[in-house]
Amino acid sequence: MDRKEFRDLATPEEAREAIASLSLEGGVERVSLADARGRVLVARLDAELDVPGFDRASLDGYALRAKDTFGADEADPARLTLTGTVHAGEKPAIEVGEGDAVEISTGAVMPAGADAMVPVERTDTEGDEVLIRTSVAPGDNVMFAGADVAAGERALGPGTRITPRDVGLLSALGIDEVPVRARPRVGIVSTGDELVRPGEAVDSDRGEIYDVNSYTIAAGVEDAGGEAVLYPHAGDDQDEMERVLREAAAECDLVLSSGSTSASAVDVIYRVIEERGELLLHGVAVKPGKPMLVGRLNASEDRSSSGGSAYVGLPGYPVSAMMVFRTFVAPAIREAAGLPEPDAATVEGRMARQERYGEGRLRLMPVGTVTDGDGETLVYPVDKGSGATTSLAEADGVVAVDPGTDYLDEGESVTVQLFSPDVRPPTLLGVGEDDPTLNRLLDDLENPRYLSVGSRPGLRRLREGVPDVAVVAGPIDREIEAASLGGWDREWGLVVRPGNPDEIEGLADLVDRELRFVNRTTDSGLRASLGGAIADLADERDATRHDLVEAIDGFDLGLRAHESPARKVIAGDADAGLGLRTTADRLDLGFVPIDDQPVRVLANPDRREKAGVRNLARALESADYQQ
Amino acid sequence: MDRKEFRDLATPEEAREAIASLSLEGGVERVSLADARGRVLVARLDAELDVPGFDRASLDGYALRAKDTFGADEADPARLTLTGTVHAGEKPAIEVGEGDAVEISTGAVMPAGADAMVPVERTDTEGDEVLIRTSVAPGDNVMFAGADVAAGERALGPGTRITPRDVGLLSALGIDEVPVRARPRVGIVSTGDELVRPGEAVDSDRGEIYDVNSYTIAAGVEDAGGEAVLYPHAGDDQDEMERVLREAAAECDLVLSSGSTSASAVDVIYRVIEERGELLLHGVAVKPGKPMLVGRLNASEDRSSSGGSAYVGLPGYPVSAMMVFRTFVAPAIREAAGLPEPDAATVEGRMARQERYGEGRLRLMPVGTVTDGDGETLVYPVDKGSGATTSLAEADGVVAVDPGTDYLDEGESVTVQLFSPDVRPPTLLGVGEDDPTLNRLLDDLENPRYLSVGSRPGLRRLREGVPDVAVVAGPIDREIEAASLGGWDREWGLVVRPGNPDEIEGLADLVDRELRFVNRTTDSGLRASLGGAIADLADERDATRHDLVEAIDGFDLGLRAHESPARKVIAGDADAGLGLRTTADRLDLGFVPIDDQPVRVLANPDRREKAGVRNLARALESADYQQ
Repeated sequence: MDRKEFRDLATPEEAREAIASLSLEGGVERVSLADARGRVLVARLDAELDVPGFDRASLDGYALRAKDTFGADEADPARLTLTGTVHAGEKPAIEVGEGDAVEISTGAVMPAGADAMVPVERTDTEGDEVLIRTSVAPGDNVMFAGADVAAGERALGPGTRITPRDVGLLSALGIDEVPVRARPRVGIVSTGDELVRPGEAVDSDRGEIYDVNSYTIAAGVEDAGGEAVLYPHAGDDQDEMERVLREAAAECDLVLSSGSTSASAVDVIYRVIEERGELLLHGVAVKPGKPMLVGRLNASEDRSSSGGSAYVGLPGYPVSAMMVFRTFVAPAIREAAGLPEPDAATVEGRMARQERYGEGRLRLMPVGTVTDGDGETLVYPVDKGSGATTSLAEADGVVAVDPGTDYLDEGESVTVQLFSPDVRPPTLLGVGEDDPTLNRLLDDLENPRYLSVGSRPGLRRLREGVPDVAVVAGPIDREIEAASLGGWDREWGLVVRPGNPDEIEGLADLVDRELRFVNRTTDSGLRASLGGAIADLADERDATRHDLVEAIDGFDLGLRAHESPARKVIAGDADAGLGLRTTADRLDLGFVPIDDQPVRVLANPDRREKAGVRNLARALESADYQQ
Repeated sequence: MDRKEFRDLATPEEAREAIASLSLEGGVERVSLADARGRVLVARLDAELDVPGFDRASLDGYALRAKDTFGADEADPARLTLTGTVHAGEKPAIEVGEGDAVEISTGAVMPAGADAMVPVERTDTEGDEVLIRTSVAPGDNVMFAGADVAAGERALGPGTRITPRDVGLLSALGIDEVPVRARPRVGIVSTGDELVRPGEAVDSDRGEIYDVNSYTIAAGVEDAGGEAVLYPHAGDDQDEMERVLREAAAECDLVLSSGSTSASAVDVIYRVIEERGELLLHGVAVKPGKPMLVGRLNASEDRSSSGGSAYVGLPGYPVSAMMVFRTFVAPAIREAAGLPEPDAATVEGRMARQERYGEGRLRLMPVGTVTDGDGETLVYPVDKGSGATTSLAEADGVVAVDPGTDYLDEGESVTVQLFSPDVRPPTLLGVGEDDPTLNRLLDDLENPRYLSVGSRPGLRRLREGVPDVAVVAGPIDREIEAASLGGWDREWGLVVRPGNPDEIEGLADLVDRELRFVNRTTDSGLRASLGGAIADLADERDATRHDLVEAIDGFDLGLRAHESPARKVIAGDADAGLGLRTTADRLDLGFVPIDDQPVRVLANPDRREKAGVRNLARALESADYQQ
C-alpha cells in the first residue's frame, strides 16, 4: 500500500463520513432489569399479561353488590350481612350474594359476585351486620383487570432509552430481562517506548512520561456509551504491536490507537490494514488533529478469515487525541450505542483577546470562559503548546474556527460548545503565583479555577482584563489599578538537605562556596525577592549584582514550580533550592530562612461584586489566612 | 411511641428539612483511575511531579546551542557537526558542545548542553555535517520540565466531579487511584404478601402482583448517584420484616421501604424506630405521597449499640412512591453523593383541559406534553388512578400545583418540570384502538407515544383537541372533523381453543349453545362491530338484539385488552373470546372468522403539517400496511 496515497487532507465532513461508513455496532445483549437503566431497547416489548391481573380493591372496606347500596346515605344506611374476609395476596374463598358484604383489604382480589366496594370510612358494623352509609355504582373503588396495562398492549418501543419510569413499567409486566443494544466494544492500543502506565514509576532521565491517552480516551468512550478495553502497552516493538492490534481487532468493534510518534507504529498499522483491511482516509484538515487514520483492521493474517474491526488512529499528543476523539469518534460511538447526541450545550461570549489563525484548516480551539463585571461571558483560548497534556482540564469547551478565518478580534462574538451539557464554568478565575496557602484557600471555594502562571504574568493578565483576580508574591515593579482583597506573608529561603549537612547559612554561601543551586523562573515572585536580596548583599559587599549572580552555580536554572527546586535537592541534583519554609517542612527537608515576602490577592476593579470574588474576599477575611 | 404523635401533616418544606437533617453520606473510598469518571473527589490533589519531567524536544530535528545558529538562514546555513542521536524513551548518552548537533526525536530528552532545537524540515545533512537553515532562540521547540504541570501545583480541588479531561490530568501526574466520595448505600426493603419479584410467576387468582417499587426505586437511586441494595422480599411476616430492616440499617446509609399497604408493616417500622431510633415525621401534605415516614433506624435491639441508618418510608402505590422519592429523597442522595442538582429542565405549556384540585395539599401532577399545530406545548395530566403502576412511563414531567389552587383552567400557562434534562417529549401523540398492525407501524417512528384507550374514547379525545391522531376500528357512530391519513382492514371473529374442538362455527353457536364467551369493553371497536353482527343475526331471526345478548353467557364480561379474551381461552376460563385472527395465530389458537373491519388513522386537522404526523402518514403509505 502506498503511504502517499492520501496527498490531500480530507475535509472534516469527509472524515465524519468515513467513520460513519464503518460499522461500530456491537449487536444485541440481554440484561437483567437491575442493569437496564440507561440501556437502549432493540425490540418492542408488548404486555404479555393484564396489569392488574385481577379486579382489585382500591381501598380497605367492603366488597358488595352496588345494587344493594341503592339509596343508602349517612342517615339511612343499607344493612348487609358480613359473610367473610379477603386479604391482599389470598384467593377469595367466598362469593358475594345479594345482601352480602365481604371485608376486603386494599389490593385484594374482588370476590365473585361483588361489582363494587365501599371504603371502611363510610361504614359501621353492628354485630354481623355492616351499615353502608353511601351508595355506589358498579365499578366504584375497583381497579379492573388490565386497567393499568392490558395484555397485548405495546409497552415500550424499539430505541427506547430505559428510564427508572420504564423500569417501573417493565416490573409491572414481570419482565426481568430485556434485549438491549450491546455497548460497542472499543479497544485502546497505546504504543511508544516512552510511555508508562499511571501508578508505575516513571524515569524522567530516560524521557519516560505517563500514558495520558489510554485512560482519558477510555473515559471518553464510556461517556459516549461504549465499553472501553485497554490493551497492554505495546512499546515500539513491531511484532508485539502487530500482535496486540490483531487481538484488539478480533475482540472489538472499534480499535483506537494513539501514543506513538514513531514512524514504526504507522508502519505496523499500514501492514495490518494491507492484509485484507482497508484504509479509508489518512490526514484531516483540522487543527489539532491532522495525522488521523480511518480504516478497517483485519484480525488475522489469513486473507480468507472474516472478523476484524473498524479502526481510527488518533494523534499522539493528548490534547489533539481528545479533540479528534470528541469531534469524530464519540458521535459514531453514540450512534452505534443508540444514544442521542447530547443537546448542544453552548454559551455565547466575547473573545477576551485577538487570536490569529489562517492555517487553512478547521481550528478546534479549546477555551475557558469567565464572567465579566456585567455578567457577560469572556472567552479565552487555553493552549499550553502542542505537547501539553493538561490543557483540556482547564478548558470549558471548544470554539470551532473555520478555515477561512484569519483572526478573531478582541470583543468578537463566538459560540462555545461546552464539553458536556453539565459543564459548570468556574465561579472565579485566578492567575498568578503558586502558593500552598492559596491552594488551601481555594479548597474553601466552589469550583474555582486557578492558573499558576507566576506573579509577573499574572499581573499582566489582570491588566489585560481577563481574570477576576491575580495573586502576586514579592515586590510589584509597576503600579496596577486593582482592588486588594487581602493577603498573607510567607517565609522563603533556601531549601537544603535534611539537617543541613553542608551548613549553609545564607545567600553568601551560595556566592562564596562551591554549592549547586536551583532557582525559580523570572515569572516567580520568589525569584523577584531573591533578586532584591542579592542586590542588598551586593551593596553590602560593594560589588555588582552581576558579579554575585555569576558566582552562583545554577542561578540561571529557573524552574517553574514552587516545589521543583526542593525536589532537585531530594534527587541529589542540587545542594540548595529557592523555596518556601512550608515546602521544606512538607518534604522533610532542611530550610535556611532569608526573608518573608507578602502574597497579595488583587481583584479586577470591575469584578468586585461578582459572587466568586466576594466569596474569595470573605474567605480571606477569615482568621485562617491572616498570619 | 404514640402512633398519633403526628396529627398534622408536615409541609413539604418540613419534610425536606427532616431528610436533610439525616446524614446519608457514605464516607470515602479509593477508586482506580479506570473507575474515576463521574466520581466526586474528596480532597485536593496536588502535582507530585513536574510534567513533563524533563526538557523535551517538541519535534523531530536537531538539539543544539541556540548561539550556534545565530545569523543562519536558507541561503547561508550554519554548519554543525552531527555527534549523536537521542530517541524518545532513552537517556541521552552525549553532551552538546559548541558547534555540535544531536539528532533528536519528538518527545526525547534534550541532551545536556543543548538549549534549543531545529526541526528537521529546516535542515540538510552533508556527510557528518548538519546544515541549519534557520536561527533559533534559547528554548525554541523545547517544552521545559514542569511547563505543563509543575510539582506542587494544585491539580484538582475537592468536590471536582471527574471528567475524561480530568482523567487526562490525573494520568499525566501518574495517579492511578483517587479518593472519592463513596456512593451512599441505599437499602430497599419491600414488604407485602401480595408482591412477587419480576421474573417469577405471578398468581392472579391469589391477588399477586409484581413488585414495581423495588427495581424502580433502585433505578432512581442509581440515577441520583447512590448505590442501590435490594433486600430479599420480606412478605408480611413481622419477624422476618424486622430482621431485614435491621440488617439493611446496619449495612446502609439510608433504608427505603415501600410496598406493603398492611398495618403490620407500619407496626414493625415503629418498633424498630422505637428501640433507640428516632421518628422525625409521619405524613406530608402532598398528593400523591401523604403516608411518608422519615426517621432513623437502629441496627440492633441493643440500645447501647451504635450503627443504623437514615430511614424514609415511601407510599406503597408505585406512582406515589416515585413522586415522593423524586421530590424528597433523590435530592438528598445527590447531595450526599456530592453531585450537583441537575439543571432544572422545564417546559412552559398550556393546560389542554381544566383540572380541579383543592385538597389543601401540594399536588404533584404527572403530565404528558404534546406540541400543537402552532408549535406550542399542550400539557395534559396523566392519571390512571391511584393503583396504577405505569402512569409515569407515559408522562414527561410534573406540574406542581400549590395547595391554594382550586383549579387550573384550560389554556392556563403552567411550568412542567421534566423528569430529567434529557427527556424528549414524543414526536407524535396517538390515542385509540389497540391493534397489532398499529404496533408495528409505531416501531418505524421515532419516539411516538400511543395511549390505547379504545376507539370511542380515542375519538372523544381527538375532538377535545389533545392528541395528534386517533386510531379507530369499526363503525364510527358520530361524524368528526378529522383528516384521514389512511388505514387497513383487520379480520375479527371468535378466538377458540386450538383445533376448535367445540366446532364453533359462528355467533349463532354462542347464542344457541352452552358456551362461555369473553367480550371486550364497549370502548373497543371490536365490540362495536360485534354489536352490528348481533343486530344482523337478530334481523335474520326476527328476534331482538337484547334477546340474543341475554342468551350469550359472558357477553357483559368485557375486557380492555385485545389479547385478554384469547388468554381467558388459553386459561380454560372461556370457550370463545372476541378477538383478531392475528392474535389467534400468534397465540396458536383456533379462529372462527366473522367479518373484516376497517382501522382508520384520523389526524387533528391543525396538526397535519407536524413532522411526527407527516412521518406517520408516510409510513402508512408504504406498502407494508396496505392490506
